[in-house]
Amino acid sequence: MRNIALTLSYDGTAYHGWQSQPGIITIEQVVRTGIETILNHPAKVYAGARTDRGVHAFGQVINFHTEKEIPLTNLMKGLNSLLPHDIRVLKAREVDSYFHARYSAQSKTYVYIIATTPYHSPFHFRYSWHIPYAIDTHRMHEAIHTIVGEHDFSSFKKKEEVYEHHVRTVFRAGVKKKGDCIYTIIEATGFLRYMVRTIVGTLVWVGTGRLSQEDFIEILNAHDRVHAGPTAPAKGLFLRRIRY
Amino acid sequence: MRNIALTLSYDGTAYHGWQSQPGIITIEQVVRTGIETILNHPAKVYAGARTDRGVHAFGQVINFHTEKEIPLTNLMKGLNSLLPHDIRVLKAREVDSYFHARYSAQSKTYVYIIATTPYHSPFHFRYSWHIPYAIDTHRMHEAIHTIVGEHDFSSFKKKEEVYEHHVRTVFRAGVKKKGDCIYTIIEATGFLRYMVRTIVGTLVWVGTGRLSQEDFIEILNAHDRVHAGPTAPAKGLFLRRIRY
Repeated sequence: MRNIALTLSYDGTAYHGWQSQPGIITIEQVVRTGIETILNHPAKVYAGARTDRGVHAFGQVINFHTEKEIPLTNLMKGLNSLLPHDIRVLKAREVDSYFHARYSAQSKTYVYIIATTPYHSPFHFRYSWHIPYAIDTHRMHEAIHTIVGEHDFSSFKKKEEVYEHHVRTVFRAGVKKKGDCIYTIIEATGFLRYMVRTIVGTLVWVGTGRLSQEDFIEILNAHDRVHAGPTAPAKGLFLRRIRY
Repeated sequence: MRNIALTLSYDGTAYHGWQSQPGIITIEQVVRTGIETILNHPAKVYAGARTDRGVHAFGQVINFHTEKEIPLTNLMKGLNSLLPHDIRVLKAREVDSYFHARYSAQSKTYVYIIATTPYHSPFHFRYSWHIPYAIDTHRMHEAIHTIVGEHDFSSFKKKEEVYEHHVRTVFRAGVKKKGDCIYTIIEATGFLRYMVRTIVGTLVWVGTGRLSQEDFIEILNAHDRVHAGPTAPAKGLFLRRIRY
């Protein structure tokens, strides 16, 4: 049995997230349909990250199994001709039988983009959160630094979401300004749902002076979503890469 | 009578170009409707460049007249709240009575973007021409250099389009590669319809080796569209700025 891993990039604007759900169009459903059309057999598709509605990806990784002998380049070309233009297969490779896109992942990196122009550019509109008022990225960077390491991230998650464990390890976290955009980058073993977006929403409050860095640390240590800032909009979030 | 100039940026994907035509949605029509709604009187709107269907703009300039006392910042805010997100007003200023967005223009600059990745990124798809095969940008740059100066550009225009004069002056023309994209930049007094797109289509033939630089010069001097390369797709073309 072959185990095949694909790297995908997608513009999440038109989709209700990754995971298949009856009655709505998801990226998983579109991709799986494409794979099943080419393989001509049902396939179960595992994804490295289940991105939410409206979230984009530069480097989503998925895997599936098949007995079919189809060469990887043909599989890629075939899929890219079947898939809509907002989903592309960037890479295909044969992986070990025990490889699982989700469970084999060592880390995932997300990038969040904030556009700071006075008016939201038509070319940034689908891909960023628009914050036209003064915001101190240095303060944001100082605050986000405190999440590096092992922490309980209960303060930064979707309210309704229930987890057994809330501890995740952050390897790398930073904020940098480049041109008219502010990039927040977080690499971690895993993420709670809305974790990046709630961290970014809270960081914006630090950047505008509504919260101090000490407040940010207190919020992190409170282990309660109620103290954090707003959940930043999905369209600014990109799954950048998954490391194995 | 006040004469007001606006700088606009738009994603042309959803529109049938700038110029109003009955029965189809154009950028002029949407912008004029917005202006007339705010001014509460009919307005004639003049544009620096009549961009074609699917062409984008970073810096289109328009002007119109009004007796209304509305402050420029209110006008901008009002317009940006009325306009769809793929059209933004970036700047508003009061200009002399004799200013005309089209006739007062000293030069216009267009940029054409080619994406060279093996597969067309979902984030580049709406904004570039995808050419995944080997292309020599140095050859393209050497060839495009020959259009600088005053030339009859009959070879690089829309076949059906009739003009009295085909001579335009190019101030600046270049091709550069940056990351996965090739940028072709042309600044000129004016452009024939499809001029940039036909030049780019022909340059691509130079870049792939199908034409030599001498062939390119011969095509320019032939004053006949029939010898030039294909018209590059509209979606890669951006009106970058208009100088007055």
